[in-house]
Amino acid sequence: MNKLLILAEDADEYRALIQKENLPDLELISQPEADCEIVFGTPKLIQRNLSALPNLKWAQSTWAGVEPLLDPTLRRDYILTNARGVFGGLMSEFVFGHLLYHEKKIGIHLQAQKEKRWDHADIGMLRGKTIGLLGVGSIGAHLAQTAKHFGMTVRGYTKSSETSARVDNYYHGSDLIEFARGLDYLVCVLPRTKDTNKLINADVLNALPSHAIFINVGRGNAVDESALVDSLARGKIAAAVLDVFEQEPLPADHPFWMTPNLQITFHTSALSYPEDIAKIFVENYRLFIADKPLAHRVDFERGY
Amino acid sequence: MNKLLILAEDADEYRALIQKENLPDLELISQPEADCEIVFGTPKLIQRNLSALPNLKWAQSTWAGVEPLLDPTLRRDYILTNARGVFGGLMSEFVFGHLLYHEKKIGIHLQAQKEKRWDHADIGMLRGKTIGLLGVGSIGAHLAQTAKHFGMTVRGYTKSSETSARVDNYYHGSDLIEFARGLDYLVCVLPRTKDTNKLINADVLNALPSHAIFINVGRGNAVDESALVDSLARGKIAAAVLDVFEQEPLPADHPFWMTPNLQITFHTSALSYPEDIAKIFVENYRLFIADKPLAHRVDFERGY
Repeated sequence: MNKLLILAEDADEYRALIQKENLPDLELISQPEADCEIVFGTPKLIQRNLSALPNLKWAQSTWAGVEPLLDPTLRRDYILTNARGVFGGLMSEFVFGHLLYHEKKIGIHLQAQKEKRWDHADIGMLRGKTIGLLGVGSIGAHLAQTAKHFGMTVRGYTKSSETSARVDNYYHGSDLIEFARGLDYLVCVLPRTKDTNKLINADVLNALPSHAIFINVGRGNAVDESALVDSLARGKIAAAVLDVFEQEPLPADHPFWMTPNLQITFHTSALSYPEDIAKIFVENYRLFIADKPLAHRVDFERGY
Repeated sequence: MNKLLILAEDADEYRALIQKENLPDLELISQPEADCEIVFGTPKLIQRNLSALPNLKWAQSTWAGVEPLLDPTLRRDYILTNARGVFGGLMSEFVFGHLLYHEKKIGIHLQAQKEKRWDHADIGMLRGKTIGLLGVGSIGAHLAQTAKHFGMTVRGYTKSSETSARVDNYYHGSDLIEFARGLDYLVCVLPRTKDTNKLINADVLNALPSHAIFINVGRGNAVDESALVDSLARGKIAAAVLDVFEQEPLPADHPFWMTPNLQITFHTSALSYPEDIAKIFVENYRLFIADKPLAHRVDFERGY
């Protein structure tokens, strides 16, 4: 019998979803036990319980980002898998919702309405625009697909992979400035790793045209925050939407609260929905008991 | 030699686009002439020039809506074609931009940011929602395709046609209330005809759940405006976005300016872009000189 410990705020919902599946040889426990080999939960709660789970073999994260478990002082003698492949659709909704808010002048129209002014000025469009995706995993691939649906050109910047066929042009390594040059929209979906630190710096922002919109739905570390404040304050780019930050919640005295044309969205872009995440666990559990390699395994060194 | 008169505000742009095509046997003229057989322009300007064009054989409208030419007291002894098939993508951008504005709580996040309040509350999503399309021509078909991309269920209400395979369930005739019942989003793309007058009345609005969003990008006559004001004021539906009105520009004393949860977008949802529309003319001209039936012919009686 495999003992499974669920460690999440919505543990009851996960328990119900997993029990419904009648998985073989599985016993759900509610407290850490020495012979428990499987844990399923949020990275922070798993981290706190690592020492009470000496025989841990596999941890399935309910989130995509597993930073709390990547600390090099922590043990790495178990298989860590994360949630992947379920956020693409939600990220597309978020990113294109914000791009369309700007192009369709929704805020400007609300203001005109308040002033009882018939504002028939042209609105913009996505069609024909170029979007640059910093990171093209499963989320980036979904964004690329949505961009193509709307008639856009897609550039992708990755370490080396070129998996999505919806990306028109790939860039790697030192091509970052060339990748950014002339983009209408720059969207970051990068995970937090040592290679992504302040990747979006003044040089990258300077390569964007003044009408460009920057959206970060990856991790806050990827952005040089003071360079971004400067770029927006000087009108070097038109707008930014930040869902993630170096420090969350954003400190009360952070300049972002008052930076012009910057929208804060409070790390809401892609929530983990239990029904999606439970399905990932269930599929991986079937692989686990069949002694097959698990899906979405995290490389502790690489960080994703 | 066929004489072509262009009657549009942006006539110079159209002239340049058409001259570039080097169409055979075509002479562009700038004033009405008795032997001119082809006119290309906005419905209003064509209407004003009808009497000066006794030999008119074909009028190509730059717009989809051709109401000024449908007045039964006007002549109908020529072929009228309109602009079709080019608005779908723009309408998708507009409709889904507004739906996402609501689901992603963009306005609510802007307000939280003003108050320097970290608002991590859940946002909504399109995925799993049901959209109802009132009218499924080329625009409705594109909206259906976009809805499917985002994982939605699609209902379509039409007179009788069932052309788009992206629509999950079709409704016709007296099924309007059944069509509306329980919809998350109701989107009207109907043209102005005598059959569409006040189709969206109190009964239809009452069939929607209180979280429903209504968007009208068709024509203003399709909505019973006072029923809509009532529905919004009583919170019977959550929001409405109106791009079109019985009277445009909207009169200064119209209650819509002050109706809660109603957004006015000033008939901007799908502009006619000269490069798109010129292409329609060029393709139809080739059919015209080959004596073949023209595309997008308007039935004066039906109205579209």
